[in-house]
Formats: sequence, structure tokens, C-alpha cells
Amino acid sequence: MTEFMDVHHNMAGITAESLREAHEADIAIQGEENVFFKQAWADPENGIVYCLSDAPSSDSVQRVHERTGHPADEIHAVPLSV
Amino acid sequence: MTEFMDVHHNMAGITAESLREAHEADIAIQGEENVFFKQAWADPENGIVYCLSDAPSSDSVQRVHERTGHPADEIHAVPLSV
Repeated sequence: MTEFMDVHHNMAGITAESLREAHEADIAIQGEENVFFKQAWADPENGIVYCLSDAPSSDSVQRVHERTGHPADEIHAVPLSV
Repeated sequence: MTEFMDVHHNMAGITAESLREAHEADIAIQGEENVFFKQAWADPENGIVYCLSDAPSSDSVQRVHERTGHPADEIHAVPLSV
């Protein structure tokens, strides 16, 4: 498993509720891809969402996000953290 | 206090040790700006570092990063999180 940070653009105006709903939709199916979404943060003014996950691959992260209707614009393995 | 995600580009080849040293340099002076750096993640292949903090403003985050020699390329308030 590797830690990933994925980034969504064009999310201006996202609300606390829509962030929670999107996160819960991902969590509902993540087990099918062995992905574990841990946290997500949103900048509603600039329309950016960051999602932190543990996953076997960036493709597995993207498959979950695609199935729930919000594919990521960037997915970065972040093997280093403090 | 607001939560911020700041992003550093052009960090290709960053190591676990250099990430830790940079984070510790920030932590050593963060109190002077009332900033609290909580976590940081690095993608050494693409040269991206994400830093999560609580801070009074994006300017205060940047002042700490500038003084420690690694100004952020983007600083986003992320008032929404799950």
C-alpha cells in the first residue's frame, strides 16, 4: 500500500455537505479496490479538493473516484510524510 | 484560525531526511507567526510537497516558509474537511 494525495479542480462552490456526500460515496465502494480514503480538504473559493488515501495504485484511486462521478485531475504518490 | 494546504513545486528528489529537516525548521519558528504545521507529504518523483497547517492567514504561513528558505508556490485555505 502507498499513500496518495489526489487533487480535484473546478470544484468552486463546494459545500461541507457536498464534500461529505462525495467522501461517503467513495468510502461506500472503496473496499472493492482495496483503497482507504482517510481525509479530504476543500478550498471552495478556488475550487480545489485534496484527498488523502492509502491504496495499491493510483489507478485504483481513480477507479473509485470515476465510479462515484468525480475523477481526480491529479493523483500523486506521497511515499514521504512527516 | 483557518486550516491551510500549501503546495511546493520543483522539489524533485526530495528525501525523507530533507523533508523532515524542512518541517523541523518550520516548526522551530512557527510560534512567532501563530502557525501550527501539522503534517506534510512529498511526491519526490514529481517534486511536489503538500503541507497542512492551522494559521491565522496565508501570509503567516508564507512568512514562516520564506524565513526557512522554501516559500510555497500555492497556499489554499481549506475551511472544509472530512
